[in-house]
Amino acid sequence: MTQRFALGLQYDGRDWLGWQSQPERRTIQDCLEDALSRFADEPIRVVAAGRTDAGVHAIGQIVHFDSAAVRTPYSWLRGVNSLLPPSISTSWVQPVAPEFHARYSALARTYHYVLYVNPVRSAHAAGRIGWCYQSLRIASMQEAARALLGEHDFSAFRSAQCQAKNPVRTLHALEILEKGGFILMTLRANAFLHHMVRNIVGCLIRVGAQKESIEWIQVVLEGRDRSRAAPTFMADGLYLGHIEYPASFPLPESPSLEIAFPSLYTAP
Amino acid sequence: MTQRFALGLQYDGRDWLGWQSQPERRTIQDCLEDALSRFADEPIRVVAAGRTDAGVHAIGQIVHFDSAAVRTPYSWLRGVNSLLPPSISTSWVQPVAPEFHARYSALARTYHYVLYVNPVRSAHAAGRIGWCYQSLRIASMQEAARALLGEHDFSAFRSAQCQAKNPVRTLHALEILEKGGFILMTLRANAFLHHMVRNIVGCLIRVGAQKESIEWIQVVLEGRDRSRAAPTFMADGLYLGHIEYPASFPLPESPSLEIAFPSLYTAP
Repeated sequence: MTQRFALGLQYDGRDWLGWQSQPERRTIQDCLEDALSRFADEPIRVVAAGRTDAGVHAIGQIVHFDSAAVRTPYSWLRGVNSLLPPSISTSWVQPVAPEFHARYSALARTYHYVLYVNPVRSAHAAGRIGWCYQSLRIASMQEAARALLGEHDFSAFRSAQCQAKNPVRTLHALEILEKGGFILMTLRANAFLHHMVRNIVGCLIRVGAQKESIEWIQVVLEGRDRSRAAPTFMADGLYLGHIEYPASFPLPESPSLEIAFPSLYTAP
Repeated sequence: MTQRFALGLQYDGRDWLGWQSQPERRTIQDCLEDALSRFADEPIRVVAAGRTDAGVHAIGQIVHFDSAAVRTPYSWLRGVNSLLPPSISTSWVQPVAPEFHARYSALARTYHYVLYVNPVRSAHAAGRIGWCYQSLRIASMQEAARALLGEHDFSAFRSAQCQAKNPVRTLHALEILEKGGFILMTLRANAFLHHMVRNIVGCLIRVGAQKESIEWIQVVLEGRDRSRAAPTFMADGLYLGHIEYPASFPLPESPSLEIAFPSLYTAP
């Protein structure tokens, strides 16, 4: 008898061509399917909540799959982790109701963007933190961000390759924090269009660098024209965080952003 | 006329065979010499404060070199950074007195070891944070660490390949902090033997995991026998931090560990 499973997944995306399976099988989906199939000794296909692009990382990616293999959740966790490469890891595996769908059951997604602001690049940002060499006015970025909150047609911030039929999304939150030369942007929405986070980040950086006015974001949004927005910002600092599901699908907690950015300095 | 320069260097060591030049020229020294030589249009050799091993990172590595090229410090910085790969970067370049020697003038070095303690490995630790699957008693590690402070023959903690003539070193400080499932160990000494930090970290973890008593560290130290200590711990979490020089050689400030582990969550 087949059982549906949910699985919490983390990855450092720098060496990968993104989530989505490709014929060369050098993607995260390919790696995970290979590991699960080897462990269960049967072919397993997976579906993810968010199909992240090349170079994008995940903290709380959620995946579902079906298998007839009889294993304990802990055995799945240990076994699959031993078959995955170091830059991909499973946080937990748990049986779920057969109607659970990692992508279609999701109610909301949170993405984080971590940015280093300094005239000189840092080797420690490469691959995992975005870099901006110009100083940024955080207050302007925070004010500009407000125009994006709520339900909007986000066509201006979607890529040409975006396959979504409907460009309307609801942005629940867009927080911008600055700390010691780094900026953390956290975006929560019911769903995101292709490149939406990186296009929003690129536009906010333009405002912060005073190349555009605070009101310009609103003009871009209302224009619904991708060519008026800033170029897609680099993938390095983008992390897929928490995915929310209805309470009828209780899932184990996935790690927070602190798994990739631990606070090491202050007392516990 | 030739001028001596000091240079602050950062690197993510995961993809490199360590500092020291090799015939295949896939080391950090090789990369830096190639970049400097191309920029100055003359062959340049460099000397570093710490010859880090394969997989070890640097935050505040200091290097010196001689060149007849006439460039401003900012021009060196920009030019060399543009010729280095993403995982290596220069923090600053500055002329220094001809008697300055990056290695022999150094009075003290600080290394950091960052450790993730969890039964399940994390993709975000791979290459940059050590991993221990057993829970650790920090208080025991802190107590055991005290036995290592001061001037000792550290033969028990040096590798068989260590080329130092004298195994006596002075360990000025060994701090161990725990925060949210991560441990930060900071060691400051006049100098370190080959593998000394990773061998000390391995022994402290054994004590923390209660496989050895607190007093065992002292026994290992006094035995001066490498075979009695724990195996060399993984390179992933090791960062060469601050290098101290006499006040007669004033140098620009290099970044702190926060360049690799920014505090993102609390208010500024």
